[in-house]
Amino acid sequence: MTVEIDADRVLADLRELRRIGALESGVQRLAFGPDDRRAREWLLERFTEAGLEARIDGVGNVFGRWPRARRAVLVGSHSDTVPRGGWLDGALGVVAAVEVARALREVGVPDGAGVDLVSFADEEGTFRGTLGSTVFCGDIGDAELDDARDATGRPLRDALAEAGWAGRELARLDAERHHAFAELHIEQGPRLEAAGVPIGVVTAIVSMRRLAVDFHGRADHAGTTPMSMRRDAGAAAIRFAARALDLLAQRGGPDTVWNIGHMALEPGAGNVVPSRAMLLIEHRDVSDERLSEFDEALAQLAAAAGAEHGCTHSLREVVHLAGVEMDPDVVEAVQASARELGVQSMPMTSGAGHDAMIIGRHIPAGMVFVPSIDGRSHDVAEDTREEDLVTGVRVLARAVQRLLNAETPVKAVGAST
Amino acid sequence: MTVEIDADRVLADLRELRRIGALESGVQRLAFGPDDRRAREWLLERFTEAGLEARIDGVGNVFGRWPRARRAVLVGSHSDTVPRGGWLDGALGVVAAVEVARALREVGVPDGAGVDLVSFADEEGTFRGTLGSTVFCGDIGDAELDDARDATGRPLRDALAEAGWAGRELARLDAERHHAFAELHIEQGPRLEAAGVPIGVVTAIVSMRRLAVDFHGRADHAGTTPMSMRRDAGAAAIRFAARALDLLAQRGGPDTVWNIGHMALEPGAGNVVPSRAMLLIEHRDVSDERLSEFDEALAQLAAAAGAEHGCTHSLREVVHLAGVEMDPDVVEAVQASARELGVQSMPMTSGAGHDAMIIGRHIPAGMVFVPSIDGRSHDVAEDTREEDLVTGVRVLARAVQRLLNAETPVKAVGAST
Repeated sequence: MTVEIDADRVLADLRELRRIGALESGVQRLAFGPDDRRAREWLLERFTEAGLEARIDGVGNVFGRWPRARRAVLVGSHSDTVPRGGWLDGALGVVAAVEVARALREVGVPDGAGVDLVSFADEEGTFRGTLGSTVFCGDIGDAELDDARDATGRPLRDALAEAGWAGRELARLDAERHHAFAELHIEQGPRLEAAGVPIGVVTAIVSMRRLAVDFHGRADHAGTTPMSMRRDAGAAAIRFAARALDLLAQRGGPDTVWNIGHMALEPGAGNVVPSRAMLLIEHRDVSDERLSEFDEALAQLAAAAGAEHGCTHSLREVVHLAGVEMDPDVVEAVQASARELGVQSMPMTSGAGHDAMIIGRHIPAGMVFVPSIDGRSHDVAEDTREEDLVTGVRVLARAVQRLLNAETPVKAVGAST
Repeated sequence: MTVEIDADRVLADLRELRRIGALESGVQRLAFGPDDRRAREWLLERFTEAGLEARIDGVGNVFGRWPRARRAVLVGSHSDTVPRGGWLDGALGVVAAVEVARALREVGVPDGAGVDLVSFADEEGTFRGTLGSTVFCGDIGDAELDDARDATGRPLRDALAEAGWAGRELARLDAERHHAFAELHIEQGPRLEAAGVPIGVVTAIVSMRRLAVDFHGRADHAGTTPMSMRRDAGAAAIRFAARALDLLAQRGGPDTVWNIGHMALEPGAGNVVPSRAMLLIEHRDVSDERLSEFDEALAQLAAAAGAEHGCTHSLREVVHLAGVEMDPDVVEAVQASARELGVQSMPMTSGAGHDAMIIGRHIPAGMVFVPSIDGRSHDVAEDTREEDLVTGVRVLARAVQRLLNAETPVKAVGAST
């Protein structure tokens, strides 16, 4: 029997979770802070009510195990937010996962199969981006956890101790048990809305590099120092930045995106030649090789611009995220579910990183996107039409059911009788 | 008889003044603050000791009148500093003026002639740049004084009241009496040092414009928003800035200088398309017309860059200083004095603003520059070789004597007997 979600129930849950850390029209639940903790306690209750063996582990992951299942589709997302964040980024995927578990329990699952639920810790990187899923997969060890600090220098270990979670056993990905991961998320971009399509089927999460480029020159009086005697770090940075934008526009593919999001000149006075200029430039593409080529070209541009203006420079890669292809079977399960439900869907890449990027390196993973109104996210204005939220949960539930059935063919037959 | 300065005396004075507000190797005497007030009280004593009728006026100008003179050369500079300033910027010109008065008293002046001394208030613009000289010339009235505030919003009037100077009669430029103004100052740039020349004869103080350019776009996720759907204020600012640097390099004359000293992107995160970008661009030239042409061209560049990136923009002129030619007779008096003393000099424009720029619009004015070590100023590292300091005072004294003699030829003959 086809799984049926309860739209009112899932919307009610979403609204209830929204109250924890509510801030204007959005929420603020910074990882391990009081509101993030309250939200995780609340989720623990929801997981438990849905019939799961649930706990909060040693890194703050809320993990729920379907009892007596030998094989499970892992479903979830995260419940922490950025500062002044939106009410759906992460929360939607976690609340939807609870609904999927409830709905599947109601309709029944193949014998020995089930869904495990998860709300990963600190996906937004208050201490370290995708922390919870990275630990869940065993991708980092104690040393990295010891080193992790927030922007104020506070150690992650202290935050975990204060939350009361330090020392608890870690929940772990179990490749024997977890045969797929499915995550519903808002798009955080304008493409679905622009196309008028309610469901995005993520085919890949793109790779990303972020470079910090720093030019060092000499501060001089901008009125009294002849142009030929300057070592203008600002001019070096401006010329580098303009040429970098040109290079990426010329050599980028149709899906390449890039950004110079930060730029600062020091000392920053109108009449002082900048002694230092710093900028952040990032670029993303499905092709990691293309990004490596860009990095090389950008390094050459930085060296040339520095030399032109008598400046030294440094170029550091501060973020290097390798993307991941979503699993074709999971993609197909989502597409088939949308078709079956008479809902239009379109394949798309995700330009943002997600927990699915971490999990997808270990087990088959897939993501379902719903439209973001005006493409907004990471802001209290973030929103999605109610109808689209419900459609997203419906497609997710059906896709998970398909995966349960497909992966346990014998039992699936039994369950369908 | 030719005036002879006392090198030890002037250096001792400079060192004593340096102790007031000493900060590392420099000084900090912010206008109307405790150290600025102490320095002005100290100068009041020096002016009085030198035989002048001295007082501190209602805006903090220390003004000394040569008794019984009907005509006077005004000599001086300022004694306030920028934060973490150097020990010579302004102070040199004021201490040198005291020495000129003492030395001329010793050698005698033409009958009815004399030198008036001044240390102008707030040249550095803690409340308003060149405040003291502007008030001295009657260029601004009570309304502007009522409005003037420091960066913290404190009214100038409060600072004057706290200093105990509020309500005092203002000293005023007297065009009948003051037939010239002479100011000795450090160059604040590297040209004299590079040329190996100890004396710069300022021929003009350049005009300056500073523009604040502001682009407004829309903040978007830099990973999920297609390039074609962005309104990237940062990209608009970067392209504008690069083209502005090119334009000024192509169309600037040999003495044109320019600077982009401040640039900031908001919100400033690596993964957020900037919603706002702001920069300060300034340009200076002897020709005010040329600067007007630049302003027009820069406005066109800003409009084009904004339009290319779907951004609105604003462009405000935040500083507009009309330069001034130094008086040919004063210039000639300085040049002739250097020649006579066997000291090499070179004509140069001043890229920095000075009190002489204000006074020079009303009466003949001139400036003498001495080299700045490594071109440094507005920093505690600011310095000048002792030998150059003495040479500067010597040239100034002789030039003032020449002006006194030239302007009162009958009495000059009398004095030379």
